[in-house]
Amino acid sequence: MKLYANKASPFARKVRILVRETGLAGRVEEVETVVSPIAANETLARDNPLVKIPALVTDSGETLFDSRVICEYLDTLHTGRKLFPASGPQRFIALRRQSLTDGILDAAVLCRYETAVRPEALRWKEWIEGQKRKIFGGLAVLEAEVGSWADEFNIGQVGTACALGYLDFRFADWDWRGGHPQLKGWFERVCARPSVAATKPG
Amino acid sequence: MKLYANKASPFARKVRILVRETGLAGRVEEVETVVSPIAANETLARDNPLVKIPALVTDSGETLFDSRVICEYLDTLHTGRKLFPASGPQRFIALRRQSLTDGILDAAVLCRYETAVRPEALRWKEWIEGQKRKIFGGLAVLEAEVGSWADEFNIGQVGTACALGYLDFRFADWDWRGGHPQLKGWFERVCARPSVAATKPG
Repeated sequence: MKLYANKASPFARKVRILVRETGLAGRVEEVETVVSPIAANETLARDNPLVKIPALVTDSGETLFDSRVICEYLDTLHTGRKLFPASGPQRFIALRRQSLTDGILDAAVLCRYETAVRPEALRWKEWIEGQKRKIFGGLAVLEAEVGSWADEFNIGQVGTACALGYLDFRFADWDWRGGHPQLKGWFERVCARPSVAATKPG
Repeated sequence: MKLYANKASPFARKVRILVRETGLAGRVEEVETVVSPIAANETLARDNPLVKIPALVTDSGETLFDSRVICEYLDTLHTGRKLFPASGPQRFIALRRQSLTDGILDAAVLCRYETAVRPEALRWKEWIEGQKRKIFGGLAVLEAEVGSWADEFNIGQVGTACALGYLDFRFADWDWRGGHPQLKGWFERVCARPSVAATKPG
């Protein structure tokens, strides 16, 4: 299988962690792919018309996207511990947590575009403030929940690791650790996990 | 159950269609909710820290979001025809199609924010062009696929109906029907479906 990805993308990182957690690393070739919200990319567009990463080309030549769909698909290809609970309340708690951390990431990526891609004269302070409110609202919920996670590491925790790692990577000056001591401790432990350590953004 | 929604939101419409397709309308109270990317909403934020709609409060008091998670959850609550294929290739084709139409909608909503919410002096033409490229790239794929759908109406078609309906609602001047005759014909037929007709944006 071929995975369009890059080392900076937090959504691609979700897939890259899942590949490593599920023992599929030998079956997935990661193709370093540069994307920009304002530039075309004809190669990627042939497989994903949204021109976003991650996108996965399966062994049968089908393309899958986005990160949620790819992660769920890859989780069907192995017989080990599943990262998507199959059904019931546990499934929806995990899916909601993935949705929460994807939402934090959507907001953070929009902040990144606003502050690093958009011409300086066209930036809008209220937009950044609105997106930051979503991010810190999400972090507050994670801070309240993380104490009950113990060693759990399903798609919800994968998303959490990617969200916190991205904030460190792009917005270190926001100091998300301040006011989130439980999350800080959890992230420190989880960063030692091989799948997380091997995919640190760069 | 309580659904935070409004009649303009295309993502809320996915859920509102699914509720009607699955016979759950009597169990879901739709609460008209105004959201803005730059304004706080304390009531909604208590249930969804991302301050986005749709958000569903279940009968047991849990909150679920976003539209994908809510739709999949509601699809477990009825014994009729399922809108999420349970497994195998059919599931991933439907999930990819939902992801494609969500991606079209993400891009269209960003265009809407750019042209109707952001102060005029701060708007960026290249941003709109980049998002439109994603939208029309996605429409081209749907145009190529729609001929094989027959009467199928799963979560992929729900998403397609919401995406096309939103383009009509906010960007009628883009004339998406031009160059997409198959999709135009399909949408005309699907707009007569009661769940789609009852949730027309307004």
